[in-house]
This record gives sequence, structure tokens and C-alpha cells, in this order.
Amino acid sequence: MNKKNMIIGQSGGPTAVINSSLAGAISCAFAQEKIGKVYGMINGIEGFFNEHLIDLNSVFENKPYMINSLKHSPAMYLGSCRYKLSGSQEEFEKAFELLEKYNIGYFFYIGGNDSMDTVKQMSEYAKKINSDVRFVGIPKTIDNDLVGIDHSPGFGSAAKYIASCVREVAYDTTIYNIKSIHIIETMGRDAGWIAGSAALAKEGTALAPHLIYLPEVAFSTEQFLKDVNNMLEKYNSVIIVVSEGIRDKDGNYISAEASNTDKFGHIMLSGVGAYLKSVIENKIGCKVRALEPGVLQRSAAHIASHTDMNEAFSLGEVAVKAAVDGQTGVFSTIRRTSDSPYCVEYGTEDVRVVANAVKTVPREWINAEGNYVTEEFLNYVRPLVVGIPQVPYRNGLPDYIDVRHLNTKEQRYTE
Amino acid sequence: MNKKNMIIGQSGGPTAVINSSLAGAISCAFAQEKIGKVYGMINGIEGFFNEHLIDLNSVFENKPYMINSLKHSPAMYLGSCRYKLSGSQEEFEKAFELLEKYNIGYFFYIGGNDSMDTVKQMSEYAKKINSDVRFVGIPKTIDNDLVGIDHSPGFGSAAKYIASCVREVAYDTTIYNIKSIHIIETMGRDAGWIAGSAALAKEGTALAPHLIYLPEVAFSTEQFLKDVNNMLEKYNSVIIVVSEGIRDKDGNYISAEASNTDKFGHIMLSGVGAYLKSVIENKIGCKVRALEPGVLQRSAAHIASHTDMNEAFSLGEVAVKAAVDGQTGVFSTIRRTSDSPYCVEYGTEDVRVVANAVKTVPREWINAEGNYVTEEFLNYVRPLVVGIPQVPYRNGLPDYIDVRHLNTKEQRYTE
Repeated sequence: MNKKNMIIGQSGGPTAVINSSLAGAISCAFAQEKIGKVYGMINGIEGFFNEHLIDLNSVFENKPYMINSLKHSPAMYLGSCRYKLSGSQEEFEKAFELLEKYNIGYFFYIGGNDSMDTVKQMSEYAKKINSDVRFVGIPKTIDNDLVGIDHSPGFGSAAKYIASCVREVAYDTTIYNIKSIHIIETMGRDAGWIAGSAALAKEGTALAPHLIYLPEVAFSTEQFLKDVNNMLEKYNSVIIVVSEGIRDKDGNYISAEASNTDKFGHIMLSGVGAYLKSVIENKIGCKVRALEPGVLQRSAAHIASHTDMNEAFSLGEVAVKAAVDGQTGVFSTIRRTSDSPYCVEYGTEDVRVVANAVKTVPREWINAEGNYVTEEFLNYVRPLVVGIPQVPYRNGLPDYIDVRHLNTKEQRYTE
Repeated sequence: MNKKNMIIGQSGGPTAVINSSLAGAISCAFAQEKIGKVYGMINGIEGFFNEHLIDLNSVFENKPYMINSLKHSPAMYLGSCRYKLSGSQEEFEKAFELLEKYNIGYFFYIGGNDSMDTVKQMSEYAKKINSDVRFVGIPKTIDNDLVGIDHSPGFGSAAKYIASCVREVAYDTTIYNIKSIHIIETMGRDAGWIAGSAALAKEGTALAPHLIYLPEVAFSTEQFLKDVNNMLEKYNSVIIVVSEGIRDKDGNYISAEASNTDKFGHIMLSGVGAYLKSVIENKIGCKVRALEPGVLQRSAAHIASHTDMNEAFSLGEVAVKAAVDGQTGVFSTIRRTSDSPYCVEYGTEDVRVVANAVKTVPREWINAEGNYVTEEFLNYVRPLVVGIPQVPYRNGLPDYIDVRHLNTKEQRYTE
């Protein structure tokens, strides 16, 4: 058997389960006769070019407890980068020199749009020079905006985190016998999948959220104030979920980062939640708080979706098997065959499908008023948040994998 | 047996486990021969005066699954209020009229300082008029600033939540090969117990937090900038935890809510985290984010401390037993007999001990530089976060108790 080595990297923003994909890919790789050593690139393609590699066999092979720890740990064991291939001849030549130097036959990249573009460019160049190195992508993004796949790994966990937050904030706010408004700002600059998922919090006996605003519908401050007043008539404590990416009808972001005063002449705070808080304070005048869970929605592995975690793991395995079977220029995907019972099939798709496209929430999955999602949206998202992963705990805290290899002094000072 | 009825209320801010105390108290009450009906006051003493009561027997008696659901649900099943007794003769007369009307012999109030003051006033008035109604407090506060008790129920869960957040944010930030600073603002206006507990996140292989600032030490912005620069020399990604209550040497809060421009003439954001963010942006200039978990640190029951939850439950039981045994004007307490193995004894203490006093972090439990806690602090807090409660989940989300009785339309519009 003519063995070739494998290399794998991670890129873009983290998710609660991107390490699950890494765990799936490497544990599958260890079982492949065609694969020799398994390298990780530290800090993505940038680390690859700098030959900043890690020997993954020594850390993980024949250590199921380490694979399990990796599977349950948030963020990126291999570190990330935001590097986009320039497409220059020298860059490709450098890349293929390095691939030859390390006898790499299998190249995997876990990431979103940009990472899939890297897979696309590298696989196309390989074809041009008759290289048989195989390039396969493994998708991830909390934003769920990748096309060519039913849903993106990482999204289910972010959706679950936000819905759980909204539910817990609702319990907190309902205890006071006064009118109050809470605004929870979610990630999702181009698509409202995460914001919309907050509607899960309302199922059962819960009351919140009352209003949800997504980037897919043009935002009107006047209509927003009407919506809020309507809800205040009905409920004491109103919970509003808003995507960071909402825009007005002219496409301008509803956020105050760029300006120092609002439309009413008041000093402005940053972010859409803080902006809407000031709008309510000025126009309605009741108690209002803005909450921005920020990076926690992509790193709270302790409340990840078990479904999401297992699917991410499987997508890593599927990618490795596809490469070993000779596929290249593809990424591993999930196709949903049924909502209830929830069933999926795994496969691969041409990476050209995913690059530079954005999957937004269909307009018909948002209500006519543009301030909530419909039952179709909920049918889609419900199965994705199910299941409680058995996160390892130590001394009362989630016990995640050691990533001290990422925090090295020689790292550069930028920005 | 001359049975008397019981009434119980909750007051002040919520915690992740204040309902565990309620669960402990009422399940213990159902087993007492001397106790007849068990009433809850909706929205604390305010609801009591308005005779807004709930029959807790009908909801919870002989329903262990409901007691379990209550034990695991955050916030306050009975709702809260911020009402302080005026101490007027009419008010006491009204109160004791109502106690007689409902044949109440046992009065319990779950809360912090102000609630213990209510217990104190009522029990003193009872003595004055020779009433045999017994008044017992059940302590709670996430701030851990109550005296007369080793630690306050609610604190362990808040500490665990903050430490888990800090750990997860650290995993998120360490993936990028650039310098960055994250500031996490915790609750705790007068005491730094929650902020200090973030140090738990650093145990084991984790790197963060790097700096912690508590209200117990006067804050100097110059020293802060030196501390941050020192850490940036050593680490790529620096995580700073800061209590909302930090003050300068003159006792002024380090926060920007009151002013529109900072010392450097720049437009200011609200809150201490946002203020320090702008200080770093202006003086150091690297990427910096401020995160304020807000109410989640007191409502995230899904990652509560099991130790905290069980102790809160026990404190409810202890209070009921004390009242039945004839005690009044006391609150239930925990005394620690050993750090490791962690052992506690339950008892009661005169409520006069707790009212209007604040337990701060001992100066010797904070390092000399005033930017981290010591091993003594960690020995104290470590056992309090241990244990994972078996929170019920439904459809992938924490399934908390139905509190729709709190969200009624007739509630008034204030503020």
C-alpha cells in the first residue's frame, strides 16, 4: 500500500463543535490504511505556509479519552487564521512544494465560505499540474448561511445557546411586578438563523421571546416602537431578540458604532442592542436592558447540541472517507430526509457550490409583520438543538482539552 | 394537634437556586404535623399586603416531580419585590390582621439583607404584641456578602457560571494569532466574590483569567494599564475580569454612565467594562472586547452548582424545622467545618446579625498588587461550585417550571 500523509487545518471563527469535526476526521484517518502520518496546521493555511505543524498521531492515536476530550471542547484545537489565498503562481508553487516535502496526499480544511474557497483553488491548481493530492472541505459556521448543505455544524449549538439564554433571561425578568424590556442581540450579520432560533425558548409554558428581528426583513424604527408598545399592553416583561445584522430599507445597519449621536440628538452607544435600548428609553421610557452574549454563543460547549456535535464529528469522518475514495474539490454535507422523525444522509458536494453564496432565512419562514418566525422555521430548527452532550467536568467546571500549544510567546503583534 | 398555616415569600434579586430553597421549605412543610396549609405570597411582602397569595399545596403536595422541577428552575416561582417595611404601626397592624385572617403561624422570607430586616421587624413586633407567629429567614444572594453564614446560596452557582464563561471565552480568543484583550464584567457592587471566583477558570491546563479587579482594592487606571501591558508581553490573548463595583481611591465608581466623555476627551460608553475597553483602545491600541454576562450569572440554572442547589434546598428545610421547633427572628445558616473534604453544618443565627452588614473579600485573600486572588480565596470557593445538577431538558432546552401565574395583565405600569 502506497501510504500518503494527511494534513488538516481549521479556519475562520470558532464554533462549539468545530473540534468535533477535527475529532471525527483524525479518528477516521487513524483507521485508514492509505493514510500515514496525520499533521495539523497551527493557525490554518497561514501556519501551513510557515510550516507550523503539529503531529496529531502522538497526541491522539490510540487515546480514545483524548479524542473524546477534543470532541467536547469548544473553539479550535489547531488555532485559526483569516488568510485568503492570493491565487498567485508563487503561492501555489510554495504550497505544493510543502505538500511534497511532507508527502501529503490528503488535505482537509474545516471552515466556512473562505475555507471552501481555499479548497476550491487548491484542488483546481492540483488538477492543472496533475497532482493527485486530494482537497476536501469540512463545513462549519454558527451563522448557518452555507449553501449546499441542509444546515451547518455549529449552528445547532449556537441556536440552543441563544434559546436557552432567552429562556433564562425571561425567568429572571418575569419576577418583577413592573414593566421592563430586555433586548438580546445575537450574532448573524447576513442571515437571521440564530436570532430566529430564539423562538424555541417560547415552546411549552414559556412566554418569551415576544419579538424577533432578522436581517432578511428591512427594519423600521417606527414599526419597532409600535410592536414594542403592543407587547407592553399584553405583557409586563417583554423580551426582544435582534440580529446584529438588521438593516433599514436602504440597507444601512441599525447600529450606532459609526456615529456619536442618534436621530434624537442623544449620545449613542455601540451595537444594535444598545441603539434600540436608547430608542426605547427615549420614546417609551420604561426600564430597558440590552444583553449581548457575544462570543459565548459560539464557545459555550457546555450546552452544545448533542445532535450538532455528533453531526460535526460525522462530517469529519465523511470527508476523510471521501478523500481516501479519490474525491477532491468537494466538501462533506448533510441532506435532511425527514423532519420528524429527524433523519439525515451524509454525502459530498462540489465546493464551487458553497463559495461566495449566502443562505438566508426564506421570507415565508418569517411572519408577515417581519417580527417573528413561522412554524416552518421552527420545524426546520427544532431537531438541530436536541441532545445533551456528556461534557467532562473537573472540579465543577467544564474540563476542556489543553490548548497551551496555541499560546506561544513568539506570536506576532498586529492590529 | 393545633395546626397553623404557613406562608412563604421571595424577595430581592433572583439566583439560580432560590427556588431550591423554596422547594426545600415547602416539601419539609408538607411533612410537618404542626403545619396546615402552605401559602405563597406572590411578589413578596407587597403581594402579602395585597393578599395576592397562591395555594402551594395544590401545586406541589404529593407531586415529587413538581418539587424537582421547582428545585432546578432559576429565578423566583413566587415573584419578587423591592419593598422595605416602613416600620409604621398601621403597617404592622395590617400585617398581623392578615396573618390572623389566614391563620398563619409560620412566616418565611427568602432573601438578602432587606428580607432579613423584614424578618427582624416582624419578629420584634410579634414579641411586642405577644403574638406566637414565628418569623424565619432563608438567606440568598449571588453576591455572597451576607454575614453570619459561611457563604450565601446562589453564590456558588454565579461563581461557577462566571468561571465557566471565562474559560470558554479564553478558548475562543486563544485561536487567533494576534494580540487581543477581553474584559469580562461581573456582578458584585460591594464585594468581589464573584469576580474573584473567575480564578477557578485558570486551574488545570487553562491560561485565563490573567487579571482580576475587585471592589475591595482601590482601582488605579495607571496601574491597570501597566498590568495589562505586562500581560501582553507574556500572552497573546489577555483576559481581564472586573467587578462592576470597582472604585478609585476616592471611592468613585470606575464607570462611565454618568459622563459623556472620558479623561481623554473621547465619547464614553456605559459600564466599567466598556469604560476600560475605551481606556485600552486609547492607550494601548490593540483589539479589545468587553463582555457583560449580566443577568445570566444569576439565572443560568442549566450550569448551576449542584452543591449550591442542595445547600439552598437544605436551608429551606432547616428554616421550617427551626420555626416548628419554636424559633423566631432567626435565619438558617451554613457553617463550614472543613475545606477538604468539604463539610458543613446547618443551624440558625439571629437575623440581627445579618441586617445592614456586608461581608467583603478579606484583603489578605487578594494579592499584594490587587490584581488577583490568592490560594486562600480559591480554597474557600473551590468546593462551592462542585457538582452538575440533573436539570430536566425538553426538546433540547432546559425545561423549567411554569411561571405564567407571575405574568398577569393586571400588573401595574411603573418606572
